[in-house]
Amino acid sequence: MPSRMEPAMETMMFTSHKFAGGICSLTKEDLRVLKEKEFPGFLKNQKDRLAMDKIMKDLDQRREGEAGFQSCSSRIAGLSTACSDSQCT
Amino acid sequence: MPSRMEPAMETMMFTSHKFAGGICSLTKEDLRVLKEKEFPGFLKNQKDRLAMDKIMKDLDQRREGEAGFQSCSSRIAGLSTACSDSQCT
Repeated sequence: MPSRMEPAMETMMFTSHKFAGGICSLTKEDLRVLKEKEFPGFLKNQKDRLAMDKIMKDLDQRREGEAGFQSCSSRIAGLSTACSDSQCT
Repeated sequence: MPSRMEPAMETMMFTSHKFAGGICSLTKEDLRVLKEKEFPGFLKNQKDRLAMDKIMKDLDQRREGEAGFQSCSSRIAGLSTACSDSQCT
C-alpha cells in the first residue's frame, strides 16, 4: 500500500511555502491567513480555543516573530489537535 | 476550492496515532518504524543524511525519549525537508 504520509507532507510543504512571506519562514500574519484559508472546517469544530490562542501567542515570544517550516508544522499540528476529537495535545 | 491541508493533517494525526506505542506519544523506535514504513520514497531521495540523524538524536536528549504529536510533526517536517528539494530546513 503506497504511503499516505508522503503526499500529506508534500501538501504541507507546498502550502506552507505558498503562504510564506519570507523565503523559508512564516510570520504570525502568514500563519493566521493560512489558518483561516486552509482550516475552515477545523476552525468550525474548534474544541480548544485556548490552545489556538497559545499557538499564535507563542510566535510573539519568538524574537524574530517568524516560524520556519519545522516549527510551523508543529503549530499546524497543534492547531489540528486543538480542533480534532483527539485526546492528545 | 476545498482545503488540501485538512485531509493532510488528518492523515498525519491518524498515522502518528497508528505508530504511537504510547497513547499520545511516539518513542524513538516508533518514529524510526514510521519513518521507514511511511517515507520509503523520501528516504530514497535523502539529500541531508545529517539532518536525519539529528532528528533522531534529538529524541535521545529528551529525558523521556518520547515525542507527543506536535513535536513528532515537527520531526516529520524536518525529515521531509531533509529529503525534499526545498532549500528551507
